[in-house]
Amino acid sequence: MKLNERGLLIVLSGPSGVGKGTVRKALFDMDDHDLTYSVSMTTRPMRPGEKDGVDYYFVSKEEFKKRIEDNGFLEYEEFFGNYYGTPKDKVEQQLDEGHEVVLEIEVQGALKVRSQVKDAVFIFLVPPSKKALSDRLISRGTENDDTVSIRLAKAEKEFKLAHKYDYIVVNDDVYNAADRILAIIRAEHAKTERSIYKYKSLIEGDI
Amino acid sequence: MKLNERGLLIVLSGPSGVGKGTVRKALFDMDDHDLTYSVSMTTRPMRPGEKDGVDYYFVSKEEFKKRIEDNGFLEYEEFFGNYYGTPKDKVEQQLDEGHEVVLEIEVQGALKVRSQVKDAVFIFLVPPSKKALSDRLISRGTENDDTVSIRLAKAEKEFKLAHKYDYIVVNDDVYNAADRILAIIRAEHAKTERSIYKYKSLIEGDI
Repeated sequence: MKLNERGLLIVLSGPSGVGKGTVRKALFDMDDHDLTYSVSMTTRPMRPGEKDGVDYYFVSKEEFKKRIEDNGFLEYEEFFGNYYGTPKDKVEQQLDEGHEVVLEIEVQGALKVRSQVKDAVFIFLVPPSKKALSDRLISRGTENDDTVSIRLAKAEKEFKLAHKYDYIVVNDDVYNAADRILAIIRAEHAKTERSIYKYKSLIEGDI
Repeated sequence: MKLNERGLLIVLSGPSGVGKGTVRKALFDMDDHDLTYSVSMTTRPMRPGEKDGVDYYFVSKEEFKKRIEDNGFLEYEEFFGNYYGTPKDKVEQQLDEGHEVVLEIEVQGALKVRSQVKDAVFIFLVPPSKKALSDRLISRGTENDDTVSIRLAKAEKEFKLAHKYDYIVVNDDVYNAADRILAIIRAEHAKTERSIYKYKSLIEGDI
């Protein structure tokens, strides 16, 4: 992609257990794109081996709260006493540099981004069936029956928010899903409202 | 693609000389789609080797005019005393059968289709530059200088209608252009308003 073309903010969301992480990984493994992550900001302590600006931007609670007041996050949440958020300025910078920025986030966070960024592309990932989602949550093995039930109940509510997204992509196969997302990215760049400025000399000048 | 999913009407348009025909051909040569042509209807006499329903639907002028009165065309035009049109019912039938129907038509015809079909996908093909269009028209060799000038002047007017299309695809390379169109078709199928009905059981039912 050309450097002078602004990148897209791609918000990849969907219920827990649908496979957002594996699909995103498959997407990044594909050729022919210029995708980057958005590095989140957090107040939790840095763990051994982590790097500031790579794994997270590590900041103090004061700094985080100041940024909240300045409307400096696309979305943020508090989780067990620590804050996690997507810093708006960092994302904007990546987009301006022409990178496609992928945010892989939960449904509630995605809808917060939607309210702030009008030209982002919102993709809702769904399982092929409810059973597939349930099987996947169980097979993770890291969660007990109660947790699985809670997650499924949450998923049920989240499915009802699918209409708030631009696209629905079924994760029947992780590479198919990633391939569909790549097609969406390419199509979005070809949308008239995004691309017409590139053809200004064709449209406005005389031949 | 599944048979129970309605196909898309894809209107491929753009100025004369931009390469609509070669791009459409490259598109049909690609794998992984279910594209069909729309067979036009005409009042001109059948030529040796032509087949009714394959090359054109050959009808009388009375029949064609009756169909015009019945609003039976997506678009039609008179050309040197003969009529040419895209029959609405045939296209609808192909779409209902789940085929993607590609209409490769001139800009004026495309805009007539736009006024009649709300959910069709309108793609405007542009040359990489004005010079590329001019070179292509000249290199066809079948046209004299005056005809080239007339076509370029027409193209100049048509470029100003690009904003009426959903997508702009640059024909820098015929296979790249076809590939972008295939991405657009895939993305359009994943659009929430087109695909949400498929996930009804996920969204409405209990888990």
